[in-house]
Amino acid sequence: MRMRSKPWTDRELEQNPHVVKDPETQKGRWAEFFGNDHPIYIEVGCGKGGFIAQNAAKYPDINFIGIERQHTVVGIAARKAGEGLPNLALVESDAKDLSELFEVGEFQRMYLNFSDPWPKKRYYKRRLTYREFLRQYQAVFGEKGEIFMKTDNRGLFEFSLNEFCAEGWQLSNISLDLHNSDFPDNIMTEYEEKFSAMGQPIYRLEARFSKPVRQE
Amino acid sequence: MRMRSKPWTDRELEQNPHVVKDPETQKGRWAEFFGNDHPIYIEVGCGKGGFIAQNAAKYPDINFIGIERQHTVVGIAARKAGEGLPNLALVESDAKDLSELFEVGEFQRMYLNFSDPWPKKRYYKRRLTYREFLRQYQAVFGEKGEIFMKTDNRGLFEFSLNEFCAEGWQLSNISLDLHNSDFPDNIMTEYEEKFSAMGQPIYRLEARFSKPVRQE
Repeated sequence: MRMRSKPWTDRELEQNPHVVKDPETQKGRWAEFFGNDHPIYIEVGCGKGGFIAQNAAKYPDINFIGIERQHTVVGIAARKAGEGLPNLALVESDAKDLSELFEVGEFQRMYLNFSDPWPKKRYYKRRLTYREFLRQYQAVFGEKGEIFMKTDNRGLFEFSLNEFCAEGWQLSNISLDLHNSDFPDNIMTEYEEKFSAMGQPIYRLEARFSKPVRQE
Repeated sequence: MRMRSKPWTDRELEQNPHVVKDPETQKGRWAEFFGNDHPIYIEVGCGKGGFIAQNAAKYPDINFIGIERQHTVVGIAARKAGEGLPNLALVESDAKDLSELFEVGEFQRMYLNFSDPWPKKRYYKRRLTYREFLRQYQAVFGEKGEIFMKTDNRGLFEFSLNEFCAEGWQLSNISLDLHNSDFPDNIMTEYEEKFSAMGQPIYRLEARFSKPVRQE
């Protein structure tokens, strides 16, 4: 759902220290941007940023970059995040443009939380776990990488399980009802709070790949 | 749930042509038993046998062996199957004893339909997709094999996804709601008819492995 533009959006995007202006110019320089060489975890489609900001607060030795393509929503995320999280960056961009934002191997983990399920069959290529997207992610990850995914949408989760498996990713910690499982320290997104309060099961998985070491 | 013994069970087990007496003596000789070298598919825990008998009727060029450990239930399966399916065998035995029934590579596919979910955590080692079982199945499959699994139990399905993945099986055609999917030609078990009529989603997966070709 596209957000109505807020009058303060542009000011927030201009002034909030977490918002990265011209993020493409940081490609290959994110360690410099953060001022350290800590691991970088990104969230593609960070929405209002609750998940990524809570992670940043909880794990100060990881750098977090929230990517969101809706201008207004980035503004909301920035306003919510406030100031004072030196390991949090917010970027207005799109899953398709990761290779314009990052050098190969520059981030180590990607979160996909409650991505648009595109439930109609004819739109399956738009789902962020469609195999073409997975290949693009792999290209930017480089030698190895991991994706942590959550959704309330059974159809999207089923599709994603099959796509990850077809592409040879290694799955683990698959949950078909996260909030009734033993999974520790779950940080909830805004959507997750809403949907789980309605009693809907939340699905989760971890997917990893590593290229086989080449025998010279 | 253990079935009460029926008075006709022993007669059915004795006289029904589908029931294999002393099945261990067929080990390594199943092709001889069926009188052809068609592929052999087994169902572990075939219950009342509806699924395996329908398969046998539909696919005459495949040999089917239904394995069930409850004496009385084998009798019911035999009675239901009647006569006239030369490619159907019923065996009173247990998942644990597959290596006593089959030579390595003697069957090509295994069905696990609505296996006991053993929902209490302390009994997870009894679930038929527990990794120790998967390793036993692999040992009897030999070079390659496939397991087709269905269940109405979300917990068992979640457990199974994780066990198969941890053991490096390749998953495909994962369904989180089989009866609202495009899966063609689904043959239902007795349990499946009951549970899906109650509106519960049915879960399904296909799991395959093949040993990498050894480089000499």
